[in-house]
Amino acid sequence: MAGARTLRIGVAGLGRAFTLMLPTFLADSRVRLVAACDPIASARARFESDFGMPAYTTVETLCADPAVDLVYVATPHQFHAAHVGVAAAFGKHAMVEKPMALSLDECTAMIDATRKAGVHLIVGHSHSFNTPVRRTRELIDSGAYGAVKMITALNFTDFLYRPRRPEELVTDAGGGVIHSQATHQIDVVRLLGGGLVQSVRAHTGAWDPQRPTEGAYSALLGFEGGAFASATYSGYGHFDSDEFMGYVGEMGQAKNPADHGAARKRLATAASAAEEAALKAARNYGGALYQAPSAPAVPLAHQHFGPLIVGCEKADLRPVADGIHVYADGERSFLPLPPPPVPRQEVIDELIATVVDGRPASHSGEWARATTAVCLAVLESARNGRECRPAHQVGHNPA
Amino acid sequence: MAGARTLRIGVAGLGRAFTLMLPTFLADSRVRLVAACDPIASARARFESDFGMPAYTTVETLCADPAVDLVYVATPHQFHAAHVGVAAAFGKHAMVEKPMALSLDECTAMIDATRKAGVHLIVGHSHSFNTPVRRTRELIDSGAYGAVKMITALNFTDFLYRPRRPEELVTDAGGGVIHSQATHQIDVVRLLGGGLVQSVRAHTGAWDPQRPTEGAYSALLGFEGGAFASATYSGYGHFDSDEFMGYVGEMGQAKNPADHGAARKRLATAASAAEEAALKAARNYGGALYQAPSAPAVPLAHQHFGPLIVGCEKADLRPVADGIHVYADGERSFLPLPPPPVPRQEVIDELIATVVDGRPASHSGEWARATTAVCLAVLESARNGRECRPAHQVGHNPA
Ligand SMILES: NC(=O)c1ccc[n+]([C@@H]2O[C@H](COP(=O)([O-])OP(=O)(O)OC[C@H]3O[C@@H](n4cnc5c(N)ncnc54)[C@H](O)[C@@H]3O)[C@@H](O)[C@H]2O)c1
Ligand SMILES: NC(=O)c1ccc[n+]([C@@H]2O[C@H](COP(=O)([O-])OP(=O)(O)OC[C@H]3O[C@@H](n4cnc5c(N)ncnc54)[C@H](O)[C@@H]3O)[C@@H](O)[C@H]2O)c1
Repeated sequence: MAGARTLRIGVAGLGRAFTLMLPTFLADSRVRLVAACDPIASARARFESDFGMPAYTTVETLCADPAVDLVYVATPHQFHAAHVGVAAAFGKHAMVEKPMALSLDECTAMIDATRKAGVHLIVGHSHSFNTPVRRTRELIDSGAYGAVKMITALNFTDFLYRPRRPEELVTDAGGGVIHSQATHQIDVVRLLGGGLVQSVRAHTGAWDPQRPTEGAYSALLGFEGGAFASATYSGYGHFDSDEFMGYVGEMGQAKNPADHGAARKRLATAASAAEEAALKAARNYGGALYQAPSAPAVPLAHQHFGPLIVGCEKADLRPVADGIHVYADGERSFLPLPPPPVPRQEVIDELIATVVDGRPASHSGEWARATTAVCLAVLESARNGRECRPAHQVGHNPA
Repeated sequence: MAGARTLRIGVAGLGRAFTLMLPTFLADSRVRLVAACDPIASARARFESDFGMPAYTTVETLCADPAVDLVYVATPHQFHAAHVGVAAAFGKHAMVEKPMALSLDECTAMIDATRKAGVHLIVGHSHSFNTPVRRTRELIDSGAYGAVKMITALNFTDFLYRPRRPEELVTDAGGGVIHSQATHQIDVVRLLGGGLVQSVRAHTGAWDPQRPTEGAYSALLGFEGGAFASATYSGYGHFDSDEFMGYVGEMGQAKNPADHGAARKRLATAASAAEEAALKAARNYGGALYQAPSAPAVPLAHQHFGPLIVGCEKADLRPVADGIHVYADGERSFLPLPPPPVPRQEVIDELIATVVDGRPASHSGEWARATTAVCLAVLESARNGRECRPAHQVGHNPA
C-alpha cells in the first residue's frame, strides 16, 4: 500500500509556515496539494494559479472538499484547536503546526476530537523531526553510549525582529518565544531525554519595551530517571549561535556573518504595527514581496535548532546540520548525514507512515501536549518564581 | 609607593596550583618568592635549589619567617581555612586558592581572622580575574549596552580524568566539579551578573562509578534585579568546548583536536588510587615528571573558562581568549585583547593594589564567600531537588 497512494493535502493558512513547507510538498511525490483556504484574496489567487486547485475562504469549506484527505493547519496558534476540531468533524486527518495550541485543555480537546472521529492527528513540523536529531535518538537507543544524562541546548536567533502580526507580540495571545520557539527546543530536548519531564524551573526575559513579550528564556528540566537538560534561547538578534554551527542556518542554508543585524534593519522600515503586519503579509505566499522556492545552488544541509550537546554515560553526541559528532571515551568520530533529497522529508515520512500505513505517530497529539505542558510550565515558573511539574508527560517510543 | 616595593611571597603547598602560578611569579618583578612549605621533600628540595630560599615542612614555620609578606595558600581545599588562620595569626597577608573553603562557617572564620589581624585576604586565582571577563564587566559598567539580562556559561573539559588525590573524588572531602570548577564558573557569572544571586536551582551528575563524585552540573541562577544565568559544566572528557573557543585552551594555549581522550589514556596507566595520586605528585613541582615552565613559542592568549555569552539589553557580549565579540543592535564588532605579557598578571595587579596600595580587593573574602555560598547551593539544590537561596551575597564594586 505504501507508495501506492498519494496523500491529498488541503492547506489551512497560506502564510509563512506554508511557504516553509511548500518546497517539501512540491518535491515529495507521496503528497499532493489539492485545496487551500485563507481569508487573504491574493494568497488564494496565487494558490489557484499555481496549482489549478480551489482555494476557499474558510476552513469549513476546505474540510468539506471530498478531495482532501488531510488538512495541514498552518493558521495562527490561537486557531489551531478550532481548526483541528473542524477537520475532525469532517472526518479529515490533521497535521497541525507547532505549537499544538495555547492551553492544555485545547490540546486535550484536539486529541479527543480526532480520536472520536477516527482520524489521525500529527503535530509538526517541529525541529525534532530533523534527521540529525532522530539519528542521535537512534544512537542512544542502540545502547552503545549508555544512558542520556545531561542535555545542553542553545539557540540565539533574531526571532523577535522578524515581521510579526500584533498578537505575536502578546504572550497571552500566543506571542513570544515560549509558545513559538520553546516548542521546537523542548520537543527536541524531550525526544532526546526520553520524554518524561518531571520538573521545570525557568526564567524568561522581555527586555525590549517595543516588543513586550518574552524574547528569551533559560530553562532547567529534570527528567524521570535523573537526566537533566538546560535549554536557553534568545531571539533578540544579537549573538547568532549559527556561528557555533559552521554558519549553517535553521533551514540548512549557508549563512553570511556579514548579515548581522539584517532583521532589525528590515523591520525599521515598518513605522507601525499595521505596517509591520503588512510587511509580514507581503513576504508571504501571494504577497508583493513573496519569493517562490527555487532549487538552491548548493544542496541544503539538514535543518537544525541550534547547538545541542547530548551527554551520555560514555560519550557526548553533538548533532549538527551535516552529521553527528561522537565524542566517546577513547576517540572522537563524525557520522556524516548527507543533505536530504527533499527538505523536511521526515515530515512526509511520518505522515505516510501514520495516515497511509497506520503506524502510530511519533509526533502524536499526546506527545505534543506534553511539550506544550513543558512550555506552559516555563512561563509559569518564570512568572511565579518557582519550580513546576508539567502534566501529561509521555515517553518517547523507540522505533 | 606602587612599584617601589616588592611583595615577598611565601608559598604554602608546592603542588599543581603552584606550578600554574609559577610562570606569573617568575615573570612579574613586583613579586618575589622568598620561602615555601610542603610535606613533600622532593618539592622542598627543588624549591631550595631553584630559588636558594628556605622550604619548610609546616605552614607555621613558613609563616614565622620574617621575610614573608604574604602567604599564597595553595594546599588542598580542606586546609585552606586552617592555613589562612595560621597566616593571620602570624600577621601575614593571605592569598588563598579557590575554592575559598568547603563551608560557609570556614569562610566566615577566615574573614574574621584576617580582619582581626589587620591583614588582607584575597581569594584566587579564579578565572574571573581574566582580562576578557573584566573588560566585559567594564563594557557593562560603561552603560553603553544597557543592563545585563541573561548569561550563558558552558564548559566541557576532561577535569574528572586528570590524576587526582583520593579526596578529590569524594564530594564531602571537597571532591568533584562543584567545589573545584563551579567556583571558577560561578565567580565569573557572579561578576558579570552583578554579584547578588537570589535563587539557585541545579542538577548535578555523577555517572562514572569509578569516580563517584560530581562530574557535571547545570545550574540556573536568578540575580537581584531580574537577570538570570545558566551555567553548565561537564568534566567527563567527551565534548571539549574549547572547540567553540577556536581550540584555545583554559591556559590560553593552542590545542590540538587530535588530543581527544588523552587524559583518559594517561589515567589508564594508574592501576590504583595510590598510583593515581603518585602520578599527580610525579607531575608536580619536584616530581619525576615535572616540566619547568618555559617561554611558549607563540605568546599565550588570555586564559578563559569556556564559552560565555552575556546578554545585555542592547548587545550580546562574548569574551574569548583574544578579545570580546560585541554583537550589538546594528552591528557586530570585535574588541581585540592582545596576549598579556605575563600570564595571570591580573592576579599580581590585584595583590599589589590591595596589599601595597591599600585599595579594596575585588576578590575579597566576602566576595569569595558569596561564590562559595552559590556553589554549596548548587550541591544542596541537586541533592534535595529544590531551589535554594544562597546566603552572604555581595555586589560587584564597579572599578
Ligand atoms: N514549523 C515551522 O518552522 C513554522 C514556521 C513558521 C510558523 N509556524 C507556525 O505556523 C502557524 C502560522 O504562523 P505563520 O508565521 O505562518 O503566520 P502567518 O501570519 O504568516 O500565516 C498565517 C496564515 O493563516 C491565515 N489565516 C488566518 N486566519 C485564518 C482562518 N480562519 N482560516 C484560514 N486561514 C487563516 C492568514 O491569513 C495567514 O495567511 C503558527 O502556529 C506558527 O507557530 C511554524
Ligand atoms: N586556580 C587554579 O587554576 C587552580 C589550579 C589547580 C588547583 N587549584 C587549587 O589549589 C589547591 C591545591 O590543589 P592542587 O591541584 O594544587 O593539589 P596538589 O595535590 O597538586 O598540591 C597540593 C600541595 O599541597 C601540599 N600540602 C598538603 N598539605 C600541606 C600542608 N599541611 N602544608 C603545606 N603543604 C601541604 C601537598 O604536598 C601538595 O604538594 C586546591 O584548592 C585547588 O582548588 C587552583
